[in-house]
Amino acid sequence: MTQSHTSPRFTGVVPPVVTPFTPEGEVDHESLAGVVEMLITGGVAGLFALGSTGETAYLTEAQRVAVLETIVRANAGRVPVIAGAIELTAPRIIETAQKLVAAGADAIVTTAPLYTLNSQAEIGRHFRLIAAAIDAPLWAYDVPVRVHTKLSIELLLDLAADGVIHGLKDSSGDDVAFRRLVAANRAAGSPLQLLTGHELVVDAMLLAGADGVVPGFANVDVEGYVRLFEAAARGDFDAARDAQERLNERFELVFAPRGYSGDAMGVGAFKVAMQARGFIAHAGMAVTVEPLAADAIAEVRAIAERTGLAAAPARA
Amino acid sequence: MTQSHTSPRFTGVVPPVVTPFTPEGEVDHESLAGVVEMLITGGVAGLFALGSTGETAYLTEAQRVAVLETIVRANAGRVPVIAGAIELTAPRIIETAQKLVAAGADAIVTTAPLYTLNSQAEIGRHFRLIAAAIDAPLWAYDVPVRVHTKLSIELLLDLAADGVIHGLKDSSGDDVAFRRLVAANRAAGSPLQLLTGHELVVDAMLLAGADGVVPGFANVDVEGYVRLFEAAARGDFDAARDAQERLNERFELVFAPRGYSGDAMGVGAFKVAMQARGFIAHAGMAVTVEPLAADAIAEVRAIAERTGLAAAPARA
Amino acid sequence: MTQSHTSPRFTGVVPPVVTPFTPEGEVDHESLAGVVEMLITGGVAGLFALGSTGETAYLTEAQRVAVLETIVRANAGRVPVIAGAIELTAPRIIETAQKLVAAGADAIVTTAPLYTLNSQAEIGRHFRLIAAAIDAPLWAYDVPVRVHTKLSIELLLDLAADGVIHGLKDSSGDDVAFRRLVAANRAAGSPLQLLTGHELVVDAMLLAGADGVVPGFANVDVEGYVRLFEAAARGDFDAARDAQERLNERFELVFAPRGYSGDAMGVGAFKVAMQARGFIAHAGMAVTVEPLAADAIAEVRAIAERTGLAAAPARA
Amino acid sequence: MTQSHTSPRFTGVVPPVVTPFTPEGEVDHESLAGVVEMLITGGVAGLFALGSTGETAYLTEAQRVAVLETIVRANAGRVPVIAGAIELTAPRIIETAQKLVAAGADAIVTTAPLYTLNSQAEIGRHFRLIAAAIDAPLWAYDVPVRVHTKLSIELLLDLAADGVIHGLKDSSGDDVAFRRLVAANRAAGSPLQLLTGHELVVDAMLLAGADGVVPGFANVDVEGYVRLFEAAARGDFDAARDAQERLNERFELVFAPRGYSGDAMGVGAFKVAMQARGFIAHAGMAVTVEPLAADAIAEVRAIAERTGLAAAPARA
Repeated sequence: MTQSHTSPRFTGVVPPVVTPFTPEGEVDHESLAGVVEMLITGGVAGLFALGSTGETAYLTEAQRVAVLETIVRANAGRVPVIAGAIELTAPRIIETAQKLVAAGADAIVTTAPLYTLNSQAEIGRHFRLIAAAIDAPLWAYDVPVRVHTKLSIELLLDLAADGVIHGLKDSSGDDVAFRRLVAANRAAGSPLQLLTGHELVVDAMLLAGADGVVPGFANVDVEGYVRLFEAAARGDFDAARDAQERLNERFELVFAPRGYSGDAMGVGAFKVAMQARGFIAHAGMAVTVEPLAADAIAEVRAIAERTGLAAAPARA
Repeated sequence: MTQSHTSPRFTGVVPPVVTPFTPEGEVDHESLAGVVEMLITGGVAGLFALGSTGETAYLTEAQRVAVLETIVRANAGRVPVIAGAIELTAPRIIETAQKLVAAGADAIVTTAPLYTLNSQAEIGRHFRLIAAAIDAPLWAYDVPVRVHTKLSIELLLDLAADGVIHGLKDSSGDDVAFRRLVAANRAAGSPLQLLTGHELVVDAMLLAGADGVVPGFANVDVEGYVRLFEAAARGDFDAARDAQERLNERFELVFAPRGYSGDAMGVGAFKVAMQARGFIAHAGMAVTVEPLAADAIAEVRAIAERTGLAAAPARA
Repeated sequence: MTQSHTSPRFTGVVPPVVTPFTPEGEVDHESLAGVVEMLITGGVAGLFALGSTGETAYLTEAQRVAVLETIVRANAGRVPVIAGAIELTAPRIIETAQKLVAAGADAIVTTAPLYTLNSQAEIGRHFRLIAAAIDAPLWAYDVPVRVHTKLSIELLLDLAADGVIHGLKDSSGDDVAFRRLVAANRAAGSPLQLLTGHELVVDAMLLAGADGVVPGFANVDVEGYVRLFEAAARGDFDAARDAQERLNERFELVFAPRGYSGDAMGVGAFKVAMQARGFIAHAGMAVTVEPLAADAIAEVRAIAERTGLAAAPARA
Repeated sequence: MTQSHTSPRFTGVVPPVVTPFTPEGEVDHESLAGVVEMLITGGVAGLFALGSTGETAYLTEAQRVAVLETIVRANAGRVPVIAGAIELTAPRIIETAQKLVAAGADAIVTTAPLYTLNSQAEIGRHFRLIAAAIDAPLWAYDVPVRVHTKLSIELLLDLAADGVIHGLKDSSGDDVAFRRLVAANRAAGSPLQLLTGHELVVDAMLLAGADGVVPGFANVDVEGYVRLFEAAARGDFDAARDAQERLNERFELVFAPRGYSGDAMGVGAFKVAMQARGFIAHAGMAVTVEPLAADAIAEVRAIAERTGLAAAPARA
């Protein structure tokens, strides 16, 4: 099976866009549009809509489409938009993906099936079925901490060779497998674009051969990631490392809330820092996620201030 | 928060109903109606619609509703029907559950969130949000091999005390936790009905205090499970064990296909045996699941024959 | 390879003997001899020396030999003694096992290798090498929570068929695998004696076909386990369940210490209750294990008292 | 508690020395001495004796001491030697470590306890007990794939602050935790030397701030790792990456044997390549490890040849 799609290039910083909520738990589309503007002004190479950082799993189908529409409208064609279709299995992913393509996604990204007990071969069938049914280039998203499956190098290159997938977002935490994938992909003529989600080691991942990065923390500090990427792109790894280390000092605010779930800690801290910088109106998360308590919020804000994440100048 | 629903009793054998497919991959509603009739004639105490054995995760929303409608129509009110709303998170589960209640489900069962990284407290918020939004009693489904979360005893009893959940289907594989839950539930006045999904050790689970059982293999041998349950119900554990051991000999057909995924092996073998017995027209599985090869099918059939699972007499 | 050894029978309660320590951290041999006497008087069918409950992993080689010598001397040939040789790999296990056999062990029990990354076939080579080198029957100990490997049914029956192993202590927590092993072992002519370590569900495991039980809590309540085993042996599973439920109420004292490690909680609570009953002089654990704090000790003692674990009458 | 030891510096390539065996399964001390000479001639900064690559877990105590004696003698004081004391728990590690120090180890490295179920606090007590009992600087070894515990950043820095440990060999596969540890260690005044065992991403780890590297594959290609380290040390990350990529092409020989255990694959392939280069007389592994079959050996040799790992010139 060969797909005729050509994927847009996502070389650079491609942040997963946060989904702001109103205090009533509705999507705050005005803040969302502002975030998109802030990111594009900051120099991103693309937008990753409806990813984990976007709390996509907590959104209804209608909310997902509405979020993507706002992102697409605010973007106004300036950078390519890849959208996550995170669902249980292929038949359901196809339905969602078709709606997202209709809403303006330039590419679709999805994971191995959830809930099911599948072999790598079956995961291959899953991606093939999806790619054949949607009118947009398909990317794979490898995030075992959430999906509880690791996409094998063999599977990814098989799918790439047949034009089924055009790229990978790797959040597997397996830097050795990523390194081997980089080499194998290059040997195969680079059919895959390779993005890393490991936002604390982007310098190392770019040294290893990643094409781009999908950092949730770019919602807080987009300039930092753009500076890091540009340094690595011109081969100045000392500067890239300096940029990474500065980002990591700031990123410690994510580890400040103690005793919270992974989702509460990560996105919760991002949103508190974004609100402190004036990027979003409210810091609330999806309704079932435990809100950060006052002391945790204070600690996040303190680290933000101490590391120079002051309120941004008002945008025009 | 207190819910006003009263759950139907599911004391006895409550099989998860298989979803038969046509060779074209459509739901085979005629075979499905036949399976329901076979199960009810066989003496089941209820029907578990849209569970893992029903390949629910692979069905679209429309297919799920259609499957439930067929089950409800074929059942014609003879036994209570509990339906699985297996989705990523509460907002999406609510949408599906409302449709299933409208289609005739007497109770809804769901799991902890999928894909997300939540604490036990957040899983509690998840169940509370769902229960408050649906017009039917809610049950919890604990299946860590698929959901990658274990529901704690404390959480389950908290939710039960507040009327949020009315029962549990336990497929956790943790017999010690189940035993402690039985004791704690009894100490709390038995707010929860406790069903076990451990079909190979039902005698032991009934001895331990389970109210009922949800055996996928009842789609193949419903009489065996009904006989087992009745023996245990009258306190004859020697007879219960004999029934279990006979079932287990037959169940070995599930382990016969080697080198397949969990989903292909389990449901695949069930369906081959069901077809051999004349219960369904075709043995096909969801489209991305690898079909059993001829040698695996032959082995499953051989075990079925050798253990006395002959073709059933034609139903009227 | 065929071994000529015949294993003693371990049908009944075969408790893993606790290792008492003095306040200085030395083995308290006087208390240890008293524990052995208490257990044998209580009706045990054998003694499991140097198991996990005996804190064997924390003992030096010299301490292990000394502990076994005390157990063997106190036992005075009344019941068979099986001794754990818990070491990294076969060459080291052989050295230890030879010393334990010289010190009077009637059988040796050991696990798959620790630290190494081995296949099931290599684990088979491991057991074969050990069996060939020691002058006593060898048993396998399956405890994945500590060894991080599960012994497969195929491997166990292969080893049994060749006379390499004579029995299994199963602490795998996998009741389905245990049930299948019982059936496969019976079909093979019962070459293996099967002991369960699941002390909270012994009634169910005996119903399923276990030959005996290795309950750590028998160090606290040996009468309870003997009563349970005898009820099951005469086929009275109602009485067995009653005995189990009474034991489980008492066993809740193990879950009382909150925030401790698995080793501190389990053995720590056992020892507090044993001291309260006058079975050992001190409740201290191995030196690197965190001692239970006063509040945890108080809670353990309170549960012991509430559930009728009063101080035992002085032994002659 | 403060320790008075000063650890030798291990800045650079510190290979874990392979343990060659004779066809009869004895340690081949002549080959071992040759390996040490080859490594030192190749430019290593230290030797890591008795690590996982050295198949230490399979060696008896007497063999371990003999292996270390040969390494120390062949080294003749040219580079510092750190020796692994891999045992179940502190009391046993202390006994082994004392023998290794007596045999000439300049530092001792060990892991968290094996087999036991301990908290991070208890792991801290474990390291403190060991450090207080041995007359050499202690290092920690973090290898969760074997030990099934991850050493936390907090624990490592606590132990470092008290002079308990002087360095870490990190084989955790958790590059994010390593990066955070580098930053925290630097903030604390760099009490810890940080070595990485991730031999496929050494360039990235050096960029991130590792002091040195412990590559098993240096037994096959020491020049490659020395060249890589030197490039990174002078800040030339392009050259470091080139060296890494060349090493990784060669390292693919480790992945060539299919269907083998982790230990058989890794060390087995190393030894085949070492024998092909004339570094050791025989390629045999520890006795319970499955030997590579002829086809796997042929494939390893083919990759070695194809990637330029020709037989080395005879050493004087």
